[in-house]
Amino acid sequence: MTIAWRERPIGVVGLGLIGGSLALDLGAQGLRVQALVHRQATAERARQRRLADQVSTDPAVLADCALVVLALPLDRLLEPSTELLAALPPGSVITDVGSVKGPVLECWGQWPRFVASHPMAGTAAAGVEAGLTGLFAGRPWVATPTADTDPEALEVVRDLAEAVGARWIECPAADHDQAVALISHLPVLLGAALIEVAGQAPLARALASSGFADTSRVGGGNPELGTLMARYNREALLAALARYRTRLDGLEQLVRGSDWPALAEQLAQAQALRPEFLGP
Amino acid sequence: MTIAWRERPIGVVGLGLIGGSLALDLGAQGLRVQALVHRQATAERARQRRLADQVSTDPAVLADCALVVLALPLDRLLEPSTELLAALPPGSVITDVGSVKGPVLECWGQWPRFVASHPMAGTAAAGVEAGLTGLFAGRPWVATPTADTDPEALEVVRDLAEAVGARWIECPAADHDQAVALISHLPVLLGAALIEVAGQAPLARALASSGFADTSRVGGGNPELGTLMARYNREALLAALARYRTRLDGLEQLVRGSDWPALAEQLAQAQALRPEFLGP
Repeated sequence: MTIAWRERPIGVVGLGLIGGSLALDLGAQGLRVQALVHRQATAERARQRRLADQVSTDPAVLADCALVVLALPLDRLLEPSTELLAALPPGSVITDVGSVKGPVLECWGQWPRFVASHPMAGTAAAGVEAGLTGLFAGRPWVATPTADTDPEALEVVRDLAEAVGARWIECPAADHDQAVALISHLPVLLGAALIEVAGQAPLARALASSGFADTSRVGGGNPELGTLMARYNREALLAALARYRTRLDGLEQLVRGSDWPALAEQLAQAQALRPEFLGP
Repeated sequence: MTIAWRERPIGVVGLGLIGGSLALDLGAQGLRVQALVHRQATAERARQRRLADQVSTDPAVLADCALVVLALPLDRLLEPSTELLAALPPGSVITDVGSVKGPVLECWGQWPRFVASHPMAGTAAAGVEAGLTGLFAGRPWVATPTADTDPEALEVVRDLAEAVGARWIECPAADHDQAVALISHLPVLLGAALIEVAGQAPLARALASSGFADTSRVGGGNPELGTLMARYNREALLAALARYRTRLDGLEQLVRGSDWPALAEQLAQAQALRPEFLGP
């Protein structure tokens, strides 16, 4: 490792669920974390929670950092303030945690030593109260390097990810965006549509059980987050929706045609396939 | 209560998840349970597990019962064997646990003292190993009485349901079948379609997390059960699918039209509505 990122403060921009959790895990290893947040109230609460060694609303807090993690919501990541851009130390490695990688590379791909990455961990919580230790342990941390990505910078971000226990995965941004459209963004719309249609039947509310609760969980999640995902992964989400519709149409035709052996076969395929998504 | 059902053995036909759990809970209260099962191997295992006081493959085991619970899969419930029909004691209260009530009433509605009911409790397990204590505690137990239903028989089944801690709900069979189509049967197809479409992207398998796992759980469930539900609740399921499709189309149009404020509004409605399904 030519870039001695552990010997300099690590900058974290944003102390929400991801930024706060990352700061806590790094701090627990004795690494120095200096965080930039947007609002004074957030800074105060972050200090009370001891999320980082130093928390400030002044971009100068990043000055000494060799590695800066942009843990911002997608919209603020993709429309960075000029103050933030001016505060990023020349030569430092910059990475992000955004859940869509194509637009991030369009915005940041030409920045020297930028590495597009996405730690795939989360809870339903958000904001400065949400950060917790151990969030990344065993979870995928996906990087989507391009031909322009600095190999040393990529190694630094990999080192960071592995330092907090994540599983490192590299793939093209388009593959990542297609995969998250299928496994994260499509389920939001499916679940929301299910809640809306079931909400029309009062008895359904009284009878719903864990099956409904599970199927609808992400559909009933944070609406701002769901909207940002749809907005910045629109093409991949529309493609996923089209493919999903074809599959659902196929199942519906089996029901309409009372083709029960074929339906049982399709459901058996789904049953056999699902464990492959659940990891080791 | 004119029918002293507690003072006579209670018959349970089938010792799968529901029948076995019911037998265990009733036995724990000192009530005598006599169970009829289909196969000798099941009878032996049920005896080893002490699911009931008496377990037999001989329908005569039901002879003394004042209350018989048909805890059979839908297909066997709706095509009862002549041996079973002959073994049901004249004058006894009969109820079922089927997840669809319209076809059950068509088949059994003219049987004297039959009460169509559906304890809405379950786990992913099935078979003689699946039964466990406390399965019904706090869960809805829905009855769908008709004008022909014997009021005393209805009271007996209500007493049974409350004896194992369930919440008693009465409603028309059509309302029940519409509700379970929305909250149970539709999620099976949605989840199965999601698994199938995500299965086409190898990276999706590596990156899937708890959100995907939850959304797809019932879609990856028992295919025989899912097929029976679709088969015997076909009309209500097709109606639910049509209404779901309209909702999903609406969300897709907002994404296609990049109408982010309207999408955020729809997702916020889903977020606000979902807790109403989750019970107290």
